[in-house]
Amino acid sequence: MRGVVLNGPGDVGVVDREDPRIVEPTDAIIKVTAACVCGSDLWPYRGVQKSTGPAPMGHEYVGVVEQVGGQVTRVKPGDFVVGSFFASDDTCEICRAGYQSRCVNAQPLGAIGTQAQYARIPLADGTLVATPGMPDADIVPSLLAASDVLGTGWFGAVAAEVGPGKTVAVVGDGAVGLLGVLAARRLGAERIVIFSRHADRQKLAAEYGATDVIVERGDEGVALLKEMTGGLGAHSVIEAVGTQESMMQAIRSTRPGGHVGYVGVAHGVAIPGDELFFSGVHLHGGPAPVRRFLPELVDLIWDRRIDPGKVFDLTLPLEDAAEGYRAMDERRAIKTLLIP
Amino acid sequence: MRGVVLNGPGDVGVVDREDPRIVEPTDAIIKVTAACVCGSDLWPYRGVQKSTGPAPMGHEYVGVVEQVGGQVTRVKPGDFVVGSFFASDDTCEICRAGYQSRCVNAQPLGAIGTQAQYARIPLADGTLVATPGMPDADIVPSLLAASDVLGTGWFGAVAAEVGPGKTVAVVGDGAVGLLGVLAARRLGAERIVIFSRHADRQKLAAEYGATDVIVERGDEGVALLKEMTGGLGAHSVIEAVGTQESMMQAIRSTRPGGHVGYVGVAHGVAIPGDELFFSGVHLHGGPAPVRRFLPELVDLIWDRRIDPGKVFDLTLPLEDAAEGYRAMDERRAIKTLLIP
Repeated sequence: MRGVVLNGPGDVGVVDREDPRIVEPTDAIIKVTAACVCGSDLWPYRGVQKSTGPAPMGHEYVGVVEQVGGQVTRVKPGDFVVGSFFASDDTCEICRAGYQSRCVNAQPLGAIGTQAQYARIPLADGTLVATPGMPDADIVPSLLAASDVLGTGWFGAVAAEVGPGKTVAVVGDGAVGLLGVLAARRLGAERIVIFSRHADRQKLAAEYGATDVIVERGDEGVALLKEMTGGLGAHSVIEAVGTQESMMQAIRSTRPGGHVGYVGVAHGVAIPGDELFFSGVHLHGGPAPVRRFLPELVDLIWDRRIDPGKVFDLTLPLEDAAEGYRAMDERRAIKTLLIP
Repeated sequence: MRGVVLNGPGDVGVVDREDPRIVEPTDAIIKVTAACVCGSDLWPYRGVQKSTGPAPMGHEYVGVVEQVGGQVTRVKPGDFVVGSFFASDDTCEICRAGYQSRCVNAQPLGAIGTQAQYARIPLADGTLVATPGMPDADIVPSLLAASDVLGTGWFGAVAAEVGPGKTVAVVGDGAVGLLGVLAARRLGAERIVIFSRHADRQKLAAEYGATDVIVERGDEGVALLKEMTGGLGAHSVIEAVGTQESMMQAIRSTRPGGHVGYVGVAHGVAIPGDELFFSGVHLHGGPAPVRRFLPELVDLIWDRRIDPGKVFDLTLPLEDAAEGYRAMDERRAIKTLLIP
């Protein structure tokens, strides 16, 4: 089969890779209908995160089950499925508490590489959620978004305790931040402020429910947010970048007793304990337990009540993956969908 | 009046200070019945936190109202009162959300110095809680504990989302940690593990409801806690020290999705973002909003259902404050009560 590999910083290739096969009786093999490039794929692409190439890439996917191992009972060949970017058994104590991305048997799909024609999904019963039938083509991007970027934005909003009557701020106008806006709207937020300097992203944020835009960053942005909120800061802040600056901006944007939901994969972040202490905020986040939210998100998409697929503003054949990475790196695209 | 001052690291004096008087119409003057030395007073005493002496000391207090300003309506001369270590109006949006220590008009009592015969309490209506009558002498230490150390341990437990069926770990066996144990027991924890190397503190922890003791610290202590909890870690961890080591021990002791409640005043702490991210824990804490809990805590003490005053294992006249500090610094005492 054909699949994407990262040979080194800035060097994306599409190569022949061995067809996946069932290894464990809990595995499923899927034919990938659509995959995509994640903001977190840009960390190794940019060389910020070390990688030893050629490394298979991709951890987001929707597809059709081709084959299942002997112990798989909840999905069957022919099912259209969405899965999380972490395989999880969905039965351990951590999964049952809703933290499937930290399942005691968790396996990252990134190691498997779903930017490919086929993929082996471990722990298929715990990981995959079948849709009610074969989806219409127009909702495939949205179902794909549920696999990570929507689930991650959703978790950011849940971790930030977004709810009715609250003012929410979103740090980061990438796909996760934008879908954090969508989640905040669905979860009943009264006011949703996005920090964004890009007109196209501001526009999509408004479509998803943002009520205000702040163009300024850092402490200047924080000061403007405080002005909007009677000097107090937001009740809930979604951090969707993962840098020192974005994390501090999120903490400083939150009122005492408020909640920061951080879902940007942290790189080079060190949170000063004394500032955190006196901020009085709640901090929660990490790799989103997408599986917790998948059944609900699939339903919302199936019923066309949300349209997270709009974050894909570039669709390319798998063979053109290199251009898909480049466009995101250069911010020409919010998010690239790849068709194997 | 007589009052304690810190002249410099290790140099505690008891000197003549000006009698406090009503400055704002929202002030009250109290005659201090009992005050005490806080673990956080040891930071400047040890020179870890800079101070410019001579600085008035003390922020915990119970006493009898002597005089009130013209706008004070909820307490009156003759009332026995307990107050938080932060004065708060108890009416602003932050107070109403339960974060009185971060009230928009918050004033730290530490700047006033309650280790003295009298003290001016700002925002008396919002800060002070009157007891149902004059307390018997035996519960005065417990009421004094409510002013900070009990309220802080209680907040640590609440911030760590302690509740029925949960396993709780407590990092720190000082007075706050010990009262974190008491709070965890009252809040229904199933199992309470205290990290402690001191026999006397282990004993008091057991009296307060600890079910297990771990003598080891750091990663060795974490490994033992994980062994006790099926490899997962505790649901709730109370951090009651404020060092880098204690904070990391707390985070590492918590299972994914679990809660760290940190109440040790952070000194020199920097939390690595990547480790925090992948830990999947909730972090919450800071200066305890003691005022939120005071009515409940005063009731529990008044009815003799809890006995937090046991943490005072040394009682001295105010004039002997220097020895009170020394005894805590050298760990000869858990906590020193001072009688003006």
